[in-house]
Amino acid sequence: MVIVMKQEASPADIDHVVEVIERLGYRAHLIRGVERTVVAAVGDERGKARLESLRALAGVEGVVPILKPYKLVGRELKRERTEIDVDGVIIGGREIQVIAGPCSVESREQIIEIAEIVKRGGAKFLRGGAYKPRTSPYSFQGLEEKGLEMLAEARDRTGLKVVTEVMDGHNVERVAQYADIIQVGARNMQNFALLKTLGKLRKPVLLKRGMMSTVEEFLMSAEYILAEGNYKVILCERGIRTFETSTRSTLDLNAIPVIQKLSHLPVIVDPSHGTGRWDLVLPMAKASVAAGADGLMIEIHPHPEEAFSDGYQSLVPKRYFSLMTEIKPLVAAMGRTLG
Amino acid sequence: MVIVMKQEASPADIDHVVEVIERLGYRAHLIRGVERTVVAAVGDERGKARLESLRALAGVEGVVPILKPYKLVGRELKRERTEIDVDGVIIGGREIQVIAGPCSVESREQIIEIAEIVKRGGAKFLRGGAYKPRTSPYSFQGLEEKGLEMLAEARDRTGLKVVTEVMDGHNVERVAQYADIIQVGARNMQNFALLKTLGKLRKPVLLKRGMMSTVEEFLMSAEYILAEGNYKVILCERGIRTFETSTRSTLDLNAIPVIQKLSHLPVIVDPSHGTGRWDLVLPMAKASVAAGADGLMIEIHPHPEEAFSDGYQSLVPKRYFSLMTEIKPLVAAMGRTLG
Amino acid sequence: MVIVMKQEASPADIDHVVEVIERLGYRAHLIRGVERTVVAAVGDERGKARLESLRALAGVEGVVPILKPYKLVGRELKRERTEIDVDGVIIGGREIQVIAGPCSVESREQIIEIAEIVKRGGAKFLRGGAYKPRTSPYSFQGLEEKGLEMLAEARDRTGLKVVTEVMDGHNVERVAQYADIIQVGARNMQNFALLKTLGKLRKPVLLKRGMMSTVEEFLMSAEYILAEGNYKVILCERGIRTFETSTRSTLDLNAIPVIQKLSHLPVIVDPSHGTGRWDLVLPMAKASVAAGADGLMIEIHPHPEEAFSDGYQSLVPKRYFSLMTEIKPLVAAMGRTLG
Amino acid sequence: MVIVMKQEASPADIDHVVEVIERLGYRAHLIRGVERTVVAAVGDERGKARLESLRALAGVEGVVPILKPYKLVGRELKRERTEIDVDGVIIGGREIQVIAGPCSVESREQIIEIAEIVKRGGAKFLRGGAYKPRTSPYSFQGLEEKGLEMLAEARDRTGLKVVTEVMDGHNVERVAQYADIIQVGARNMQNFALLKTLGKLRKPVLLKRGMMSTVEEFLMSAEYILAEGNYKVILCERGIRTFETSTRSTLDLNAIPVIQKLSHLPVIVDPSHGTGRWDLVLPMAKASVAAGADGLMIEIHPHPEEAFSDGYQSLVPKRYFSLMTEIKPLVAAMGRTLG
Repeated sequence: MVIVMKQEASPADIDHVVEVIERLGYRAHLIRGVERTVVAAVGDERGKARLESLRALAGVEGVVPILKPYKLVGRELKRERTEIDVDGVIIGGREIQVIAGPCSVESREQIIEIAEIVKRGGAKFLRGGAYKPRTSPYSFQGLEEKGLEMLAEARDRTGLKVVTEVMDGHNVERVAQYADIIQVGARNMQNFALLKTLGKLRKPVLLKRGMMSTVEEFLMSAEYILAEGNYKVILCERGIRTFETSTRSTLDLNAIPVIQKLSHLPVIVDPSHGTGRWDLVLPMAKASVAAGADGLMIEIHPHPEEAFSDGYQSLVPKRYFSLMTEIKPLVAAMGRTLG
Repeated sequence: MVIVMKQEASPADIDHVVEVIERLGYRAHLIRGVERTVVAAVGDERGKARLESLRALAGVEGVVPILKPYKLVGRELKRERTEIDVDGVIIGGREIQVIAGPCSVESREQIIEIAEIVKRGGAKFLRGGAYKPRTSPYSFQGLEEKGLEMLAEARDRTGLKVVTEVMDGHNVERVAQYADIIQVGARNMQNFALLKTLGKLRKPVLLKRGMMSTVEEFLMSAEYILAEGNYKVILCERGIRTFETSTRSTLDLNAIPVIQKLSHLPVIVDPSHGTGRWDLVLPMAKASVAAGADGLMIEIHPHPEEAFSDGYQSLVPKRYFSLMTEIKPLVAAMGRTLG
Repeated sequence: MVIVMKQEASPADIDHVVEVIERLGYRAHLIRGVERTVVAAVGDERGKARLESLRALAGVEGVVPILKPYKLVGRELKRERTEIDVDGVIIGGREIQVIAGPCSVESREQIIEIAEIVKRGGAKFLRGGAYKPRTSPYSFQGLEEKGLEMLAEARDRTGLKVVTEVMDGHNVERVAQYADIIQVGARNMQNFALLKTLGKLRKPVLLKRGMMSTVEEFLMSAEYILAEGNYKVILCERGIRTFETSTRSTLDLNAIPVIQKLSHLPVIVDPSHGTGRWDLVLPMAKASVAAGADGLMIEIHPHPEEAFSDGYQSLVPKRYFSLMTEIKPLVAAMGRTLG
Repeated sequence: MVIVMKQEASPADIDHVVEVIERLGYRAHLIRGVERTVVAAVGDERGKARLESLRALAGVEGVVPILKPYKLVGRELKRERTEIDVDGVIIGGREIQVIAGPCSVESREQIIEIAEIVKRGGAKFLRGGAYKPRTSPYSFQGLEEKGLEMLAEARDRTGLKVVTEVMDGHNVERVAQYADIIQVGARNMQNFALLKTLGKLRKPVLLKRGMMSTVEEFLMSAEYILAEGNYKVILCERGIRTFETSTRSTLDLNAIPVIQKLSHLPVIVDPSHGTGRWDLVLPMAKASVAAGADGLMIEIHPHPEEAFSDGYQSLVPKRYFSLMTEIKPLVAAMGRTLG
């Protein structure tokens, strides 16, 4: 932590800062510059949000943290990349995994029909929401436990692994019973109570980046899960909110290599939410692979115009099959294989 | 809902759109323009997120909603402004209310000392977090139930009303037992499970705007609470996330008159979070009053440099007293009184 | 400037950084922390963008500037606030000034009619664009020199001072001939060639903040003008671009006290552009005054529905008169007078 | 254009809207809904910004444009993609072009050394700034005409085509004399006077997207150039400004397929500015190719730590050579060749 003093700070102000730093257990180190003095606080500054409060001291202009705020998700502690074994299928290895399926489970017939399409296309994971976070209380809220049962039936028939969202702490156990990977949606990325509960499981968690979250906050939310002992976290970039209106979100592919440099966790991309338009899913799926993503999450629906939610960003089956074919040369060009 | 057809849409595409609209229970109305055709779907489009999926139909360029997506929070259903009676003190009336206190309850002594300061300054509400949403799992997470008990003791001693945050569905009952107003933090604004639970209470809820939520989404989150039967919702603008870095958030005061035109609910402002700097709290408190806010939420701390959280944005007691004095002429200029 | 080394930086990496720093004319100062080493470069870092390039050296994790990048606009060099004398009327003094008028000069009759309204309402400055920056090449582009002549005639008749925009370096002289204050629009805030040209004049310049410019960049653009010798710069907050869509821009009133702490230059607010809606202009004009603004810039038009541009955000005369009346108690509550 | 009336609009309000629409030369078409009335204005709405002002009429809630605001850059007028012939090298064809070089021309030796590196790596275009838009007036501002002469010499020696920036209308002729492609920087994207001047040339223009500009505004700026008769416009995505701070900009690759669906103009990507970090340039160059870009613009510098500007985002020669090798399989996987 570096504390920058104001130009007009008095010697007494500086002494006081030094005293407070040392009281908090750090060594203080003074650097007298041409125009102002800087005080370096040497010691482990992680978890020391309290140092931030030094900005409130007289004569202090700013406080600049030096260390990254996370430990367990960081590369400094664990250099090799994490591979997550989902019942025999690896996420984060050489194989790129595809998770496909509808936004919502709408009926038994729908999810079984789609599961068979997903399998036929070659993906190994089925997505489908049984609990749906919807902006409007008047929108379809999901089939809840019945939806989970339908997903389980679809898994039994196809052998696909199931990825489904949990929205609330008190449903975690129930969802964990049915899901192979538990998804945390973008709106819950900073639902810290939920993250702690998931940290106590030993099931893989797919954590979606919040629409408003920096990469650092994203990694801190993953840290919440690891800090409780669950190391099986898959990160998912799904677009951030910006001023641009031609797409529903701005897919931040910069985040893929940024995260890979900072963290050992696998990272996948959801180009369906990241664009909000089915006609952009293919090019952005390709771009995601080329940026180094470990997987893709794709919404598909046989009748998008009848979908209960997110119809416009869902691929019809034939386009999903095309996508699975068209990304192959790119996957190969990246030296990887398609899961 | 207006469906805009592509220039190259075929007559069959248009017929199909009309057919689907009518199947969904709307009347279709064709407008043939110079360059393209537009189809208006006449009927109540609220809760009809499914119409959005029409964008997936062949020949459709876009879908433009016409009605506002909310009902109960809107001015169209209830013209007069809502006044919320918190055990005899009104929020949303002529009196502007101030909610003051520390970010976190840190100890029995701290909260009682501050409560007495708050009371002395003239505010009628005490804030203080017992459950704290923190970006880092290594930061102070709050005193939990013990903190609630300390708040209750502070209320007993001072007569102040208590405002405190709930972070998770399973704590709602406990928090409701101690709080006069239950706060939902910005990160939980779209924790829909929590909103539904709060909708079943009959306690006032202070709903903070999410850092990256539009006014429309903010109102939709309030709608979740009203839709369950709890009409006592106070909205709180607390700054949005933008590219600007000189302040922690960008306080969106435009939102005050915007919300007042759209909704009958009272709206207050939190200039402490909305700026992140104690030295901006006074001017932005004044600006909030002048923009028409029904109240202010202010962080204070007798020793900001020792605060467990948010020290830099907290006012020391003497500055809180100055603020209470200095805003008075502005409150009067607005034809209101200070609560 | 503080250079943070990576945890794995070798002693040779550190030596090399020190060597480069000293070659660039700074003293290097090493601080060895628990987990990493930090190198402070002591010396005047302003104008030394080249130090930024040190991030490219082996072993360097980041470079953190310590000093503000501006000099002339800053408070450190000039503590007292700048008052700008526009031919006898002061901007930045105790008197709050109002600049009112149409977005565009549309005809001789229009500008003279409006000038008389402006004067009747009590404002001392007339705005009106003769050169219009328009997103579309097919939109009205302004009456150009004819518009300037009409403005001059309006001034002669009313005694109002004229504020009008220059869009291009080669028109600066012509605009300077007619204007009392030359306006630089938001889209030209970083047209550095234009700023340099204006810096060579001795006329007041009203510099609007770019829609996506930080306060620091805004001040740096002002610095361009001062650095050429023209100290008469008035800053104008006019809203920034965010994700919010209920208003055209998000008026960043935080910026008013932020700028006042950093700079001695006067700062005014344009609530017409900052909201994009006439029905929000009054509350945000009040909020601007309460936040400490030195002036207001307001669009008015007698027939907004026939305006060539920005009709929706223009006040009709009677609302302009109301505004001038209704802000008075707030101006007084701030201890100021209305110009 | 669709005009949405307020629920409480009176019949007289509606009649007045119809009358104004017809006076402006459109046919009005009424649709009476369950809760409100909508008026469609049928006619060519492009260039009719004046219709926007209808929002100011009594009883009007909103105005929704239906047509795209551009003509010449749009796909509706010209379906086939535009190929731009730069003296024998095509941009926008099957061949992907690379433009490489330093941020600034710093000396004769530097630019010639780099030009030879660029050529050796296989790119056909040399970039290098002689006029530099810098946030600070104290930063290096470019070698100006001398820099142009050095670029010309580098071209003579290597046969590379030269891409260089113009910042100001009065330099257009001079820059045009030396450049094969004239670049307009992000900060000048809405310098409409400059765009009009460039529209009068017959030289290719590389137009960079503004940091704060939507895709629609970007296309409108291109429309300014085409509207003056210059059809040789190359669009360049270079990152937009968002809240994310781990990268200098957020590269918006969604924009590539979005633009390709809306416009026939070629579009390239600048991953150096789009990330601001040399260590992200390779993955984002790959992602850009996979997203469908027609070219790449890459900053290189043999001694980044000594660069006058943008050192941190520049590739050293060996990394540039690697990039040219490593993107080849991706280029091939996209069915294209490397220029």
